[in-house]
Amino acid sequence: MLMPDIIANKRDGKELSEDELAFVVDGVCDGSIRAEQLGAWLMAVYNNSMSMEERIILTKLMRDSGEVIDWQGLSPLIVDKHSTGGVGDKMSLVLAPALAACGLKVPMIAGRGLAHTGGTIDKLESIPGYTTSGNERDIRRSIGFAGCCIYSQSTNIAPADSILYAIRDVTATVPSIPLITASIISKKSAEGLSCLVLDIKVGSAAFMKNLEEARTLAKSMIEVGVGVGIEVRALLTRMEKPIGSHIGNAHEVLEILDILEGSGSWDTISLIAMQGGHLLQMAGLVDTVEAGQIKILSTLSDGSAKHHWDLMCETHGVTIDVINQMRDYLETGANEFSLRSNIDGWVEDIDAMELAKVLSELGAGRSEIGQEIDHSVGAIIHAVVGTQVSEGDLVLAVEHQNDELSEEIMTRLESCIMVSSSPVSVPDRLIEVIE
Amino acid sequence: MLMPDIIANKRDGKELSEDELAFVVDGVCDGSIRAEQLGAWLMAVYNNSMSMEERIILTKLMRDSGEVIDWQGLSPLIVDKHSTGGVGDKMSLVLAPALAACGLKVPMIAGRGLAHTGGTIDKLESIPGYTTSGNERDIRRSIGFAGCCIYSQSTNIAPADSILYAIRDVTATVPSIPLITASIISKKSAEGLSCLVLDIKVGSAAFMKNLEEARTLAKSMIEVGVGVGIEVRALLTRMEKPIGSHIGNAHEVLEILDILEGSGSWDTISLIAMQGGHLLQMAGLVDTVEAGQIKILSTLSDGSAKHHWDLMCETHGVTIDVINQMRDYLETGANEFSLRSNIDGWVEDIDAMELAKVLSELGAGRSEIGQEIDHSVGAIIHAVVGTQVSEGDLVLAVEHQNDELSEEIMTRLESCIMVSSSPVSVPDRLIEVIE
Repeated sequence: MLMPDIIANKRDGKELSEDELAFVVDGVCDGSIRAEQLGAWLMAVYNNSMSMEERIILTKLMRDSGEVIDWQGLSPLIVDKHSTGGVGDKMSLVLAPALAACGLKVPMIAGRGLAHTGGTIDKLESIPGYTTSGNERDIRRSIGFAGCCIYSQSTNIAPADSILYAIRDVTATVPSIPLITASIISKKSAEGLSCLVLDIKVGSAAFMKNLEEARTLAKSMIEVGVGVGIEVRALLTRMEKPIGSHIGNAHEVLEILDILEGSGSWDTISLIAMQGGHLLQMAGLVDTVEAGQIKILSTLSDGSAKHHWDLMCETHGVTIDVINQMRDYLETGANEFSLRSNIDGWVEDIDAMELAKVLSELGAGRSEIGQEIDHSVGAIIHAVVGTQVSEGDLVLAVEHQNDELSEEIMTRLESCIMVSSSPVSVPDRLIEVIE
Repeated sequence: MLMPDIIANKRDGKELSEDELAFVVDGVCDGSIRAEQLGAWLMAVYNNSMSMEERIILTKLMRDSGEVIDWQGLSPLIVDKHSTGGVGDKMSLVLAPALAACGLKVPMIAGRGLAHTGGTIDKLESIPGYTTSGNERDIRRSIGFAGCCIYSQSTNIAPADSILYAIRDVTATVPSIPLITASIISKKSAEGLSCLVLDIKVGSAAFMKNLEEARTLAKSMIEVGVGVGIEVRALLTRMEKPIGSHIGNAHEVLEILDILEGSGSWDTISLIAMQGGHLLQMAGLVDTVEAGQIKILSTLSDGSAKHHWDLMCETHGVTIDVINQMRDYLETGANEFSLRSNIDGWVEDIDAMELAKVLSELGAGRSEIGQEIDHSVGAIIHAVVGTQVSEGDLVLAVEHQNDELSEEIMTRLESCIMVSSSPVSVPDRLIEVIE
């Protein structure tokens, strides 16, 4: 078997055989396939897509390129959530301990931020002492101790995916539905999940700009999930305005601390409850999604989610002192730039995409893999979309470390908020559920 | 400017700007673009093609990545021919000295064989002492001394093409019309040509299997040629049966020696005369193609083409002794496998593709760049298609170096010839001329 023939087959729109796909995945792992050949193959896949059969085979091969956790008797309780990435998307930080408080086990492998989106791992790393790297033994220990954990992808989990992703990142082949599907489901399958909820973000501040594309991705993930033995359900949610009250890394941890202590933004809480409700129902712990949502909300009000959060932080190496006084240890930008309403009215829009881009340029995000970020840069939304404000009221505050912001940055930030003189209706985050 | 953006633009079918193409060509030459990015970019070009404007820009950039010969006053006389590759395609070896004998100058840069096709450079290297590598100074000296030369592509001529070609070869992106066009025309343009004749082979033993594809390639080369200041004319010729009486490397040199001495196969001679006739007319040395053909034929009968061949060999380092007794120095396979007619009839077909594949497997060709070949392996066609034969007459003899041929090889060779009991009409090689 020769790589140029495999590339030519995909180039010509043919379906690749299991042997051909195995040749590719093996060659990715042992380095025997040249980089230029992988680039060409990925572009051929981008152009000609893959059948569901091919996607399932590729996903299994990528999963089996590394460690696959076998939870044995615990298996039915192993669940996880994956989001395609948004602005202010900090749900995982609450969802994992809330589900653990309900008796499910959440061995989450999460990613770092890229482009305008934040990453769960970056957010956790704003907590002094939180170690995000771990192997299978660490995951098992954390699950035993806290019922949940959030690690970054180790080289032992689906290594073929890590290598291919790094190539996709520089070859404009990231936004390919078969490749996205295989990448995500292979890692989730290696975690040993039985159920997975996907939060597929749709809109101006999401990777998926239109609903049709999001549905196609959802269906691909569900079908491939079934093919590898995971029940997958997709929640398509709107991603135009920032989620919740805080954006950034340390900032978002501040928000989830509020939520874990029974207060916080309803925008964020309702998304967490919805995701958790579905997972509890899928795992059979409750009969309806609504019952699951109520159960999640009760873990927030009764402190049980916070208890599991504390345990999770402990198993990730955070000291008791930091856990107990976490707000004091989270560094946020020393300087503040305030955006105020210049009329009496209602906040009509906050442009999540532009706001995220500016925050990223101020240090909160990265434009390429491996870049260092500044965890202290972020924004606090004082008046979310729909809120009535008076002239001069604070809508949004950007906390940064620059001595002063450039005219350009200030103008761009000012363009992010829009206040209307008449009341504004706020559409539900949820667009539809696909299962 | 970032390579992933350039790849994404081509991926999405956009036209690349001159700056973007220059970024690619510069990055190819200085090694600053990663191999996987070049693979993905080439596949994106394969999929989405390029506008004529893009092809012309790419061709100029590739040409200017190396030395470009300026012939000054001699320019109008500088001509060349390029063939897309066939079986028994040895025309260049006669055409260059024949044109030189007519007063034109032919600074030919030729290639090696790949897959089923032979390469002019391999054929010349079966002559002891013939050195195919040379730089601009060598080319100028040869043109001054012999009026013609045939060198292999040096690293100084269009180096961007050499690098990209090696990547195309392993990434299934060779058969892309814009890439083929830029590759060929950039090199020809670096030679400083004023006129170029293309022999575009069409048929079962050619890279172009159908006429429509061949026409598209012809039009691309003509338009890009004009864009870089070369007059290009394309001859589309049939390539199903082998050309002339000999196939192989040393074997084809034997055939062209016959032709240069005034005898030889009319099949080969008529193609040479046609190509030469067009070039003489294009360069303005004769008024009609027919007059040019007659002029070429006279250089074969009056010995003037042979004289320029001898001079060319001398400038390439061949000793006078080898030049004068060349047949004695050309090694051909020690063992012979004969294919004879088993009926009285007419030779109906000789399958050039299968015959070339078998010869290649016996050592005459290479399946990948850089592979060594055996110049002595080849075949002599004793009865070309259309010839009347009696039962037992020799049709074709394969000369090889194996002690014995496998059953499989013998069966495949036997399948190459077909004899009919009724007379056979032989179509003209020329299908059409595009200018």
